[in-house]
Amino acid sequence: MGLKMVKIIQTDELKSLLFNIFKGLGVPDEHAMIVSDSLVLANLRGVDSHGVSRGLDFINGIKNGEINPSPKIKVVKETDVSILIDGDRGIGIPVAYYLTLRVIDKAKRLGVSVGAARNLWNVGALAYYVMKAAREGLIGIALANARARVSVPGVKSPIVGTNPIAIGIPTKDEPIVLDMALSTVAFGKIVLALRKGEKIPEGWALTKNGRPTTDPKEALEGYLTPVGGYKGLGLAIVVDILSSILINAPYSLAITGKGPYTQGGFLMTALNPVLFRDYDEFIEALSAYINMIKSLPREPGVEVLMPGEPEYRTYLKRVKEGIPLDDEIWSQLVKVANELGIKCS
Amino acid sequence: MGLKMVKIIQTDELKSLLFNIFKGLGVPDEHAMIVSDSLVLANLRGVDSHGVSRGLDFINGIKNGEINPSPKIKVVKETDVSILIDGDRGIGIPVAYYLTLRVIDKAKRLGVSVGAARNLWNVGALAYYVMKAAREGLIGIALANARARVSVPGVKSPIVGTNPIAIGIPTKDEPIVLDMALSTVAFGKIVLALRKGEKIPEGWALTKNGRPTTDPKEALEGYLTPVGGYKGLGLAIVVDILSSILINAPYSLAITGKGPYTQGGFLMTALNPVLFRDYDEFIEALSAYINMIKSLPREPGVEVLMPGEPEYRTYLKRVKEGIPLDDEIWSQLVKVANELGIKCS
Repeated sequence: MGLKMVKIIQTDELKSLLFNIFKGLGVPDEHAMIVSDSLVLANLRGVDSHGVSRGLDFINGIKNGEINPSPKIKVVKETDVSILIDGDRGIGIPVAYYLTLRVIDKAKRLGVSVGAARNLWNVGALAYYVMKAAREGLIGIALANARARVSVPGVKSPIVGTNPIAIGIPTKDEPIVLDMALSTVAFGKIVLALRKGEKIPEGWALTKNGRPTTDPKEALEGYLTPVGGYKGLGLAIVVDILSSILINAPYSLAITGKGPYTQGGFLMTALNPVLFRDYDEFIEALSAYINMIKSLPREPGVEVLMPGEPEYRTYLKRVKEGIPLDDEIWSQLVKVANELGIKCS
Repeated sequence: MGLKMVKIIQTDELKSLLFNIFKGLGVPDEHAMIVSDSLVLANLRGVDSHGVSRGLDFINGIKNGEINPSPKIKVVKETDVSILIDGDRGIGIPVAYYLTLRVIDKAKRLGVSVGAARNLWNVGALAYYVMKAAREGLIGIALANARARVSVPGVKSPIVGTNPIAIGIPTKDEPIVLDMALSTVAFGKIVLALRKGEKIPEGWALTKNGRPTTDPKEALEGYLTPVGGYKGLGLAIVVDILSSILINAPYSLAITGKGPYTQGGFLMTALNPVLFRDYDEFIEALSAYINMIKSLPREPGVEVLMPGEPEYRTYLKRVKEGIPLDDEIWSQLVKVANELGIKCS
């Protein structure tokens, strides 16, 4: 791969740069704040695919008119325990965040609630929303469908997207955060293998004719495999249905993916533990559970980590040492900033 | 493996035999009906691990006093959208079925609801509950945790159970039914390999010291791997927390597994599609989606099946041709029937 130039940038500096860029592109302050917060959090947690690089997609989408920078979020349907909103073609992040706040509010009142958003662009990392729920003392579950690029052997078409699922659970310390795409591996890993000139392991990908391949080039023209084979495919189909057919949004195969990545729909549920148990008792019991799991007998050097713990370690490191950005991504950001007359270091 | 003797039995005959046996063991009529219905449905759908063979576990459990044949199900906590019940050490199936009915009723009123059951023995196939929700026009999601026997390399202990997840979605025809354990493969597949004297594929199992193995004997003394590696482990941990810590039931590692298999807890959610969309419109759009997925270009002989479709095909075949039971399982059933003075063919 050769050496790659990397820019190290501090959290606040990156957040304020992104905020100013989105603001400069006509995104209202409150939305610009949420978008930059979500993107920077993804970078801090080491989920770089959902950080600044996705921000560049939004910037392009606004510039070419595909994304509405200043959407009027509309409530389509609402009950005491549910809400369906229309994102007015806005960046998905502030739309999904607004939905999350409404779902949290309802779950605090009645104990459980479910919300959905459609007509929105990419929502970024699902972790953002379920972490918010968890910090409010609720269990949050979020789903979204994505452009179809997962398939199984023998099928000469993608079937579903990597359709992620995220679950956040409050604990005494950092929330448990599971945020997983339903492909065996992320697309990015195949791109990396191509750059390095390496083959990819069997089982990761298929050619566009639905044949297994270890060639990253064929894989990039073809499809990813679902995690765990037919189990992952089944789950990805169910997520597709819940985030599209159920809420009248585009299913994976109907998402064009033109311009910036886009999402069909977004579904969010929040559950209040007090429906079942005293809150403090729940948190105490969960601490004991986590400690028990983490102290199971194991080989030296092996750890059992809770979902979200590896990302939290990266977060702590990057908060302290700064966020590494690919030089190419950094240059694009600087270019946009310059166009808008925004100063950056 | 050699030839195996198989008894073919018709649906009604098997159902009535099981009903009479459970009734003979002191299980109330209504419970005995639900238990035999669930077990026979599992056999009909080809999920033999959750059929009569599990029924034998219940029979033994009642005989040795571990299972309460005639439990008084108690509502511990209830709101408009939630319910927590105590199963009084009964067979899990009628307890979970009662919970399902209550959850369905609440979701029909308010649109979404969540219920949980603890202090119960095995609930059988989760498909049973989410299919019931789907037949009532609701989306059903069920979770349960099971005795710990899933681990990852380097850990010298099981961590979590195969902790299954099931989702049922109503359609114009048969519901979509995803019902999956979170291990790479079922325990039964390793037992089968041992019987056949074959090695198991890499990645299925670990020795009791947490080392990868292809020897079915070592695997049976060791652990299963989670489906999709760390993704499946993360999901299994979350399912464990939701079906134990959240509702004050035993977590996977606290389930002794003495006698009949047992469950820690059971969690069920139902969602009414009308919260988001006109019901008929939803069903129409879902039909179009299913047809679209099933007509994607593919190799001759390849089909894309919806979750639950393979099991439904087996169901249709077995309804017509009868249910094949291992001779050993059949003999055990006949023995119990004879002890109770019940006639069987």
